[in-house]
Formats: sequence, C-alpha cells, structure tokens
Amino acid sequence: MAAQSSFRVRTRGRSFEDITGQVQERVAAAGVADGACNVFLRHTSASLLISENADPSVRRDLERFMRRVAPDGSPEYEHDTEGPDDMPAHIRSVLAGVQLTIPVSGGRLALGTWQGIYLWEHRVAPHDREVVVTVWG
Amino acid sequence: MAAQSSFRVRTRGRSFEDITGQVQERVAAAGVADGACNVFLRHTSASLLISENADPSVRRDLERFMRRVAPDGSPEYEHDTEGPDDMPAHIRSVLAGVQLTIPVSGGRLALGTWQGIYLWEHRVAPHDREVVVTVWG
Amino acid sequence: MAAQSSFRVRTRGRSFEDITGQVQERVAAAGVADGACNVFLRHTSASLLISENADPSVRRDLERFMRRVAPDGSPEYEHDTEGPDDMPAHIRSVLAGVQLTIPVSGGRLALGTWQGIYLWEHRVAPHDREVVVTVWG
Repeated sequence: MAAQSSFRVRTRGRSFEDITGQVQERVAAAGVADGACNVFLRHTSASLLISENADPSVRRDLERFMRRVAPDGSPEYEHDTEGPDDMPAHIRSVLAGVQLTIPVSGGRLALGTWQGIYLWEHRVAPHDREVVVTVWG
Repeated sequence: MAAQSSFRVRTRGRSFEDITGQVQERVAAAGVADGACNVFLRHTSASLLISENADPSVRRDLERFMRRVAPDGSPEYEHDTEGPDDMPAHIRSVLAGVQLTIPVSGGRLALGTWQGIYLWEHRVAPHDREVVVTVWG
Repeated sequence: MAAQSSFRVRTRGRSFEDITGQVQERVAAAGVADGACNVFLRHTSASLLISENADPSVRRDLERFMRRVAPDGSPEYEHDTEGPDDMPAHIRSVLAGVQLTIPVSGGRLALGTWQGIYLWEHRVAPHDREVVVTVWG
C-alpha cells in the first residue's frame, strides 16, 4: 500500500529551498523498507530537482544559467500576464521538471552522497508551494 | 497490483495535445484510491510534460523557446536523415522528457489547479504516438 | 513487493553508455509481469536519459548541443573547483535529469522500438557511477 502526504513551502522568491529532510521524514513515517518515493510539485512556475548539496555556488550558477537561456522580459514572450518573470518561470519549470521518483532503501531515500532535493522557485516574489510525497514498496 | 493500458494520439505536427482527460480516465478505471500513475511516451522525437493549462500563449512561447535554442536545420547537426526538424526533435525530447510520475489521491490525479498533461509533438509532420499509463497504490 | 538492486558503470569520460541491457536483466530477475521500473543515478554531474538507439550521430549532436548551451570554462560560472567541466556537468545533469520511471509489460521494459536507456557522463575524465534499479507491480 502507498503512503501519501503533502507539505507546504513558503519560498523567498527566486531561490532554492532544500526539502531533503522533509521528504526523508515522510519516507521514514511510511514504514517502507525497500521501494520508491515520488515527490511532486503542484505548480507550473517552480521546479523540483536533484542537485549538488555541498557548495551553494552551484545553485547560484544554475540560477545564472537559467537567466541567460530564458531571460526575464524578453520580447520573444507573448505571455506576460503576471510580469516579466511569468513566462521564463514556465520555461524553467519545463526544463528542470516538477516530479522526481527516488529509490527507498532500508527505510531511507537512496540518494548519493552529494545529492539533495531542492524546490526551485522561479518567480521573483515569494510563493506558497505544495509538495506531495508518495511512498510505496 | 498495477493496472496498465495504452492509447494512441494522432498529432497535427508541431503542437501540444492535452491528454489530461485520457490519463484521468485510466486512473479512474484502475480503482486505485491513493498511489501514483506513470505516463510514458514510446518515442524519441516528442515529449510528455506538465504545463500551464489556462492560457494557450504559454504553449506558443514554449514552442518559440525551443525553436531558438534548438533551431531547425542548424549546421551544428550531423544527424538530419529525416529532415531539418529531425535532430531538434531529439534534443527537445531529451530536454522536456518522455516520462512523468504523478500522485493519485482519492482515485484522481493529484495535479495542481493550473497543471495539465501535454504530449508535445516536435516533428513538423503529423505522427501516431503511443502513451502507456501504469497505475498502482 | 519491490525488487531493488544496483550496478556500477565505469565511464570513458564524456560519452554515452547504453545501459538498456543491464536494466532489462534486473527487470527480468524481478519476476514482475506488469508494473514499472525506476532507474536512478546517484550523482550530480552525469545523467540518465532515454534517447534514439539506432544512429550514434544523434548522441554526438546531443553532446554538441550541450557544449554550446553550457560551455566549458565559461566566465559565467562561479563554481569551478574541479575544473572547467565541473559546473557545466551540474547544469547538464539538471537539464537531462538523473531518474527515469519506465513501464514494465509482460516482464520486459515497455520501451518503444527506437528508445534506449543511456548513462550520459558529463565530466571529461572517466568516473565510476552507480545506478539503482527498483521494480514493482
């Protein structure tokens, strides 16, 4: 049987929030020894990703990369209802994705040593984001 | 036990096909209350993605973005067996992906309000595409 | 019940390693008829992806694409601890991803005819990489 729960994250605007601990708590509570865990973000202008968890300069460079390939306020965008960061947020969300499935081994996420789970806010203003965690095995 | 079925989509050439309803039908038929659903595209020149479902200009801008970063007929490509849109279609397929795992809650896909599931055809000509849906919980 | 195992791949530096057979072996050993299989890479500077399995020029063009959008040694990067290919490897890893969930049908991966599973090494030097395979149904 699958165990499912959700939690909310208040972002600070464009930034990365480390949610590894919150996902790990739900995996531990599920009581699944070996199986898998799906982490899902219910939004289209932020992302869930696995990235390097040691050096914060990696996240700063990821942010800089996205600003270059999908610049704010580009005349290329037709969609700008919510401002110059509206459409780039949707593009980033498609490129980095909103769903991850991660193995569970011995009751814990089987992440590599340098892997962390991040919620990447793509909008400039702070937002409330909801993450659904489903564990099975 | 997992419930699995597949369906075919006839695309109109480069465009987005909303398949949320077709996936939801299979989730309902599976009789799973809480669990997850995998949606998988059996091709390498189209994508499955979750995107904003309200304003079609978001999809037009996503298409414009991809045409800029992976232009048709670029001299950069060695692979052009099937024409100038052949290699860019493979690049787009890798960037946007071909597989999604989405939580199922109360017998329904636990998508956010603004999330839709789309098949993104990357080839210029219409194609027959096959999608496999697997539900468990 | 989920069946889980892992295997290691010694890469040759920047290149694609076809791991379809190794994943298929684990699926066959799991004894699951219909269900799904998660393939997970425990690293942040390589990727797992599904790509065209017939013409190697597709992989050469994917490599060329990434070198253009995330060039080695760009002054844009703050993070270069391990050399000019360090930060681009993290960017590529986020863009192409490190996890795949694929349907299992009749005891086999339900891949399309032209789909193969590849480990894409983004670092210039050879590395040992670990892949976790989890099968359920």
